Amino acid sequence: MIKFEVLKKHSHSSARLGVLTTPHGKINTPCFMPVGTQATVKALTPENLESMGAQIILGNTYHLYLRPGHELIQSLGGLHKFMNWHHPILTDSGGYQVFSMNKLTKVTEEGVKFKSHIDGSSHFISPEKAIEIQQALGADIIMAFDEPTPYPSDIPTTQKSLQLTTRWAKRCKDAMKSENQSLFGIVQGGMHPSLRKESTEQITSLDFPGYAIGGLSVGEEKHLMNDMTELTASLLPELKPRYLMGVGTPENLLTCSSMGVDMFDCVMPTRNARNGYLFVTGGKINIRNSQHQRDPDPIDPNCPCYTCKNFSRAYLRHLIMAGEILALHLLTLHNSTFYQTWMKSIRQAIEKDIPFSFTWSASE
Amino acid sequence: MIKFEVLKKHSHSSARLGVLTTPHGKINTPCFMPVGTQATVKALTPENLESMGAQIILGNTYHLYLRPGHELIQSLGGLHKFMNWHHPILTDSGGYQVFSMNKLTKVTEEGVKFKSHIDGSSHFISPEKAIEIQQALGADIIMAFDEPTPYPSDIPTTQKSLQLTTRWAKRCKDAMKSENQSLFGIVQGGMHPSLRKESTEQITSLDFPGYAIGGLSVGEEKHLMNDMTELTASLLPELKPRYLMGVGTPENLLTCSSMGVDMFDCVMPTRNARNGYLFVTGGKINIRNSQHQRDPDPIDPNCPCYTCKNFSRAYLRHLIMAGEILALHLLTLHNSTFYQTWMKSIRQAIEKDIPFSFTWSASE
Repeated sequence: MIKFEVLKKHSHSSARLGVLTTPHGKINTPCFMPVGTQATVKALTPENLESMGAQIILGNTYHLYLRPGHELIQSLGGLHKFMNWHHPILTDSGGYQVFSMNKLTKVTEEGVKFKSHIDGSSHFISPEKAIEIQQALGADIIMAFDEPTPYPSDIPTTQKSLQLTTRWAKRCKDAMKSENQSLFGIVQGGMHPSLRKESTEQITSLDFPGYAIGGLSVGEEKHLMNDMTELTASLLPELKPRYLMGVGTPENLLTCSSMGVDMFDCVMPTRNARNGYLFVTGGKINIRNSQHQRDPDPIDPNCPCYTCKNFSRAYLRHLIMAGEILALHLLTLHNSTFYQTWMKSIRQAIEKDIPFSFTWSASE
Repeated sequence: MIKFEVLKKHSHSSARLGVLTTPHGKINTPCFMPVGTQATVKALTPENLESMGAQIILGNTYHLYLRPGHELIQSLGGLHKFMNWHHPILTDSGGYQVFSMNKLTKVTEEGVKFKSHIDGSSHFISPEKAIEIQQALGADIIMAFDEPTPYPSDIPTTQKSLQLTTRWAKRCKDAMKSENQSLFGIVQGGMHPSLRKESTEQITSLDFPGYAIGGLSVGEEKHLMNDMTELTASLLPELKPRYLMGVGTPENLLTCSSMGVDMFDCVMPTRNARNGYLFVTGGKINIRNSQHQRDPDPIDPNCPCYTCKNFSRAYLRHLIMAGEILALHLLTLHNSTFYQTWMKSIRQAIEKDIPFSFTWSASE
């Protein structure tokens, strides 16, 4: 089981500094969890993740269930051992991927029928099955199986969906067997404040050890994401960890930390890196841009990563233009380090109780 | 300039233990040079190469000339600084790639006209140009521009070709300006013993600080490669380093070390790794094979690499089947480490003057 302590509250915002203790170690919050979809954070070794200060990573139940299969991973000692990551892991429930990776899903009260994006084979995941898979994987924190509400959705559709999510959350809780794992509930409710409130009340009444805010970063305007996050975070129990799923930019992490969110995950740093988009102090650069062709400077002189300590923008641009695998590794290392450093700055500001004076904007 | 010392001669073969001293450090021979075609050994960092004991790597003049350009690399401080490899580098002359990467080359006494494999643009490389490019790159050891003889080639064609290579070698020597770089001559002569002898005599008469055996591993039968290597090595000066270009399997390295070859390079370990073929004690495995699906063992329990110390065959198979970049990194790390370990075993056997008792066969 997990233990969550709020060490300090920020007097300039609703942010809080915390420590989340899991069977595989402690996590300083607010934290960012690198995404390890297929039992690897793309292009990084566990050693790389440790050296950048990542304390927890995320695995995707949907992908691991399909390939290599949760039973295979269980027979080899579980996900930690399989991927050689001996620190905390959180697995999502597969709910989001079942819907986002597949056009032809069929949802019933019982669960979801879908076809594999790999080979077209038919599968069925129920709340009980999602728990069974996640127990086989053995992550420290596992997630309830939910139905993410598409955006936009009207009030009746959203309400029907959040109520199904609540019934499924109850079934997930009932299916829990392991005492080493902690199950988080997920709040839905779309972009409707009244329904966010309704979902939060229903999910928190089931008394989970932690809560996620789901259904955001799905194409809505930024102010809607902020409004829904702020509202939901304010309604969640103060002494339980709050996890905002699938979000986001450095700016999002700062804003939502200030609203009292403790945990984040997003493919943005890793996926952007593979496309040559790099996070730097204050903004973002495209390393493919010809202005970097002869640039002897590192990506970001403030960054402590191996890439920034050793390689010029000119070299990194050459690698990615030449299609070299090393580019993907070095650029992912940088972006992922940037995110960890960013969260560390947020934690330090809360610790020292100073306002969040640093900013980041995608438009720069 | 370089200095080469033969420390010990093997009483069981013609192998010798040596130390090659260059402006960027010492190299224990016989050695294997990982291939860093485009200013990176594919999928590995300089840190990885250091940790596996690689002391020298190879860069490809043809590729670097076309992209990002030797002048760009020179303006950024040379190839060592550009790729952050502060140990010895050898660059080939581009001769082999000009012919192997291009169908439409035009050879004259002056040099070779060819079209870029990247964008079809027209280029011309002469012996003088090859030296100019290699001086801009700044490798410790650079190679004379040669015409590799296709296989098979009859005696008149081969003889004409080796004589052109000799005239070009002389022009390369005359074009040398830097005292920090050492130029190696390349022996050609195809599969004809009399012409190997002729080429060796001509090239050695130009008095280079080291010599390469070129034109092998081009599709000939194994016994021909061995015969030509043995003959050429026996004719080369004893106190100069001998480099067998583009060879080969672990078995080849062992056999040709025993013939007195000091230096090797080949894309085999890195390219095989990316295709899932892994070198192990005694043979080779295909990690994609279903027999590895649930195998908890490492690739090779005798291997000291990060991959073998931390990951199962089952995990590595999963990564490559799922198309994960980390597979390319971890498998390349293993194969490259295997080659370094293999050369270390060869050096230790010479040092202790015991017969080469270990074997490796591709057929296992």
